[in-house]
Amino acid sequence: MIDCGEGTQLQLRRSHVSFTRIQAVFISHLHGDHCFGLIGMISTFGMLGRTATLHVYAPKEFEMMLDEQMKLFCNGLDYKVEFHAIDTTKKQVIFEDRSLFVETIPLEHRVPCCGFLFREKPTLPHIRRQMIDYYQIPISHIMRIKQGEDWVTEDGEVIPNSRLVSPADPARCYAYCSDTRYMPQLHKMIDGVNLLYHESTYDTSCESRAKLYYHSTGEQAATVARDAHAGQLLLGHFSARYENETGILQEAKAIFPNTSLANENMTVDVK
Amino acid sequence: MIDCGEGTQLQLRRSHVSFTRIQAVFISHLHGDHCFGLIGMISTFGMLGRTATLHVYAPKEFEMMLDEQMKLFCNGLDYKVEFHAIDTTKKQVIFEDRSLFVETIPLEHRVPCCGFLFREKPTLPHIRRQMIDYYQIPISHIMRIKQGEDWVTEDGEVIPNSRLVSPADPARCYAYCSDTRYMPQLHKMIDGVNLLYHESTYDTSCESRAKLYYHSTGEQAATVARDAHAGQLLLGHFSARYENETGILQEAKAIFPNTSLANENMTVDVK
Repeated sequence: MIDCGEGTQLQLRRSHVSFTRIQAVFISHLHGDHCFGLIGMISTFGMLGRTATLHVYAPKEFEMMLDEQMKLFCNGLDYKVEFHAIDTTKKQVIFEDRSLFVETIPLEHRVPCCGFLFREKPTLPHIRRQMIDYYQIPISHIMRIKQGEDWVTEDGEVIPNSRLVSPADPARCYAYCSDTRYMPQLHKMIDGVNLLYHESTYDTSCESRAKLYYHSTGEQAATVARDAHAGQLLLGHFSARYENETGILQEAKAIFPNTSLANENMTVDVK
Repeated sequence: MIDCGEGTQLQLRRSHVSFTRIQAVFISHLHGDHCFGLIGMISTFGMLGRTATLHVYAPKEFEMMLDEQMKLFCNGLDYKVEFHAIDTTKKQVIFEDRSLFVETIPLEHRVPCCGFLFREKPTLPHIRRQMIDYYQIPISHIMRIKQGEDWVTEDGEVIPNSRLVSPADPARCYAYCSDTRYMPQLHKMIDGVNLLYHESTYDTSCESRAKLYYHSTGEQAATVARDAHAGQLLLGHFSARYENETGILQEAKAIFPNTSLANENMTVDVK
């Protein structure tokens, strides 16, 4: 989970996301709309009988606050909340599991802030079912073929690996960049990203305001997406001044056509 | 405002309650569902340019937590948040303004907890418009008549006050009792209350569970309402185990007929 504003646990229920699937929460910065929902979620997880450790990655100032809150409100929690202080000024891997890496992306906001880059690990190639059947390769051997081995038949014929498998799905990559002032060099840190979420608090008429408050316009977000050779751009974090954000979207699309507006409980596939 | 769980600011918007009308927040006890929304509301009030002091009444342990949160998240707030520690073990007046008193009601829960009794101050009688017109009593004199004076005509005739006014509306009274175990003596502290909100986490099949977790059944809430000679009973704080609460309602109505189930964003007039 990235960021956890007030009411996140309600939105999770609405999205029918299983609470147990959340292993880690990455907090970009210490503004309320990005972290006020964490203590409620932690405490609800406790009431639901969670036992798996929850990992919280956030700027270090958050640790004492969270500790104090948990002391007061989460007595007798049956699972561990493990805090990991992150350095928002550096681009570095902060998390790794079986399937992905998470890296910080230094951003420029009014308080220490970073984005997060989710980079999938390369997966194994797909087995060609009909070849396996044809050569009657035993199940016990499949993993070795996925890992690149050829197959030798009883007659001694060598079937090269390339005939037995089709290429793996390309590893995907998602970048979350919020909140931030426009950073002309940001694209270098996320080059080739499949999906970029970039804040676009304002439209271009408020460009100087955006700079002042360390936010971006839709046009600036699109510029980052274009320069990063992104596959798709998702805009969000809109100022409440806009009744709808079609103006922001149009300005962005002029620069980067494959742009959409994020909305509550929206699901987007990373392709 | 009584209690302030996560998402309160959203519910306020949905209810179209003006944020500026909230002068004080009374927190019954330090469980998340009663106070996790306060920091978000305070911080949103700040962003909306509030200038009036907000008074927070809560068990004393909450003060340090709130202080720490505000230091981290509410830098440069343009209004004051004034904390008032309440003693949940005593029945005493903790708030008074032009129109009402607020008193604590000691309750029995797993942590220090109290309810709140809102007692309207007696209001002035209503002027009888046609009498004022008939005797041509000047506007400048109206307040004195409301306060009980007779009127003397130019001929020296004394018109007794009782002919000039009709009785004031009776002062109303609302009691909020949540969370609490059933207290057989609670009714004495809220006798004659017009509207009683009393928690009813469980139905009677869970009476021993209610006792164990310091909660009440609907039947117990109704018993309090009956013994307190309440005008109306509102039940709430239902366990998530119930798909609907009609069972709880029926059990309560058998003891105290004028009972309703509370629901989100519901408005109830105190009569």
